Amino acid sequence: MNMITVRDRESLRESVRSARAAGKTIGFVPTMGALHEGHLSLVRIAKGEGAFVVVSVFVNPLQFGPNEDLARYPRDEDKDARLLERENADLLYRPDPSRFYPADFSTAVEVAQVSDGGEGARRPGHFRGVATVVAKLFLQVQPDFAVFGRKDLQQLAVVRRLVRDLDFPIRIRVGETVREKDGLAMSSRNAYLSDGERRRAADLSRTLFAARARAGHGEADAAKLEEEARSQLAAAGLSVDYVEAVDADTMTRVATVVPGVALAAAVRIGKTRLIDNVFLSDPKD
Amino acid sequence: MNMITVRDRESLRESVRSARAAGKTIGFVPTMGALHEGHLSLVRIAKGEGAFVVVSVFVNPLQFGPNEDLARYPRDEDKDARLLERENADLLYRPDPSRFYPADFSTAVEVAQVSDGGEGARRPGHFRGVATVVAKLFLQVQPDFAVFGRKDLQQLAVVRRLVRDLDFPIRIRVGETVREKDGLAMSSRNAYLSDGERRRAADLSRTLFAARARAGHGEADAAKLEEEARSQLAAAGLSVDYVEAVDADTMTRVATVVPGVALAAAVRIGKTRLIDNVFLSDPKD
Repeated sequence: MNMITVRDRESLRESVRSARAAGKTIGFVPTMGALHEGHLSLVRIAKGEGAFVVVSVFVNPLQFGPNEDLARYPRDEDKDARLLERENADLLYRPDPSRFYPADFSTAVEVAQVSDGGEGARRPGHFRGVATVVAKLFLQVQPDFAVFGRKDLQQLAVVRRLVRDLDFPIRIRVGETVREKDGLAMSSRNAYLSDGERRRAADLSRTLFAARARAGHGEADAAKLEEEARSQLAAAGLSVDYVEAVDADTMTRVATVVPGVALAAAVRIGKTRLIDNVFLSDPKD
Repeated sequence: MNMITVRDRESLRESVRSARAAGKTIGFVPTMGALHEGHLSLVRIAKGEGAFVVVSVFVNPLQFGPNEDLARYPRDEDKDARLLERENADLLYRPDPSRFYPADFSTAVEVAQVSDGGEGARRPGHFRGVATVVAKLFLQVQPDFAVFGRKDLQQLAVVRRLVRDLDFPIRIRVGETVREKDGLAMSSRNAYLSDGERRRAADLSRTLFAARARAGHGEADAAKLEEEARSQLAAAGLSVDYVEAVDADTMTRVATVVPGVALAAAVRIGKTRLIDNVFLSDPKD
């Protein structure tokens, strides 16, 4: 069956209703477009459940700060559609930005605690924007489950907390981070990197994997692992925004590596800000 | 059919699912209990649609300020259940307060603009608590429509904005204010009034109805109507918290009486705070 593309909520709901009436479960993959293998792996997870798969492409202005890259965020509608068709996504939802938020839109969803540190501390309002758009998309699509990538670790924690706290009847599935051959986590923002920057970018994941290896060999002191990672990133010429060992559910800093602890980092390379994370021991999910 | 009483989300959803499978629409009346004719009129509206009617009774701590009346808010579970049975409500949902919000609950829903003035300005956090519990209850019950009373005019505006902004697939129906013989709007808080206070309380609605009559005879100056009402309330010995002519959709102050403008007031009588409102011209809904 061919993929349907819709731009308005009514057509979206009509298609979802039909699919449900036909006995399908509904799987949802929210994206901001500029799709790469990471996104496509999430679509495959949803298809793997035999679901009717809805993929949204919407560059959500609410989650960008005033000095961030909203205007230059990569967009390629035709390529996104081709990639999704190839994955047999069932419905591409591409809401009209001028209609998605009415002019007097005034509702915000805030997830405190899990939003406070990490990215939340460096990007004020970012997770409020994420939680708000995710809540709205969930209510528009009304999926049975939604798939999020591990790469945006704190976003995943925020969405899980949101779903638990407000009792969204939606299961959250996780897609592991997909990486380039040299280890760089796939990200739409990698497109910003010059060739030279692209080569140096691999030092981010290399550093995180080195920390994981050290933890695997028995180093349980989180501060030590953070500090070593910071030194290595600096030595590789990357500008460190933060390196933090956190409980991946609560996103609080930890002193000791125990199951469920991840090392999350953000660096700047030129004008580009990249994030990545690895688990230092087994994830809980 | 007898009314079912449930305390947990799973049983609630199971019953709602069965009703929907039997072809029923689901109507929802959220309350804080201590039910009176005002609440029961909302149940009748829902029954009038032939719906499977869910009534929640939950005294929501999030919508009470630190110096407000959470602890002494009237509670009478047995009487509430009897009244609802008599109205043929189908399901009474009485969530366990200790389980409704998990200990690390951290999500808040905020509806700016419509929440800012009136009650919102005098009760900081009140509408955040309302919007959060309503969002959570909506997601637990997943009704086709919900019924709210006109007496809580700003709450109605907040809920409507919430539903519109986040695209809850829920229709909002309104029940007009039910009044005692002397005009006092029914409220669970009327139970706080001593006999003497109860007699004076009727001056609140009397004053608002007088303003409506003045508007009906051509007075369109909102400030004048507000000022006259303030004087009358003060003359009747009521302590005026506010009297404001507002657009009932946006809850913004207006200078001129046009369709959709209501006069909303809050007064204190002894330790009891009462609110009421009347439309100064035709409501828009």
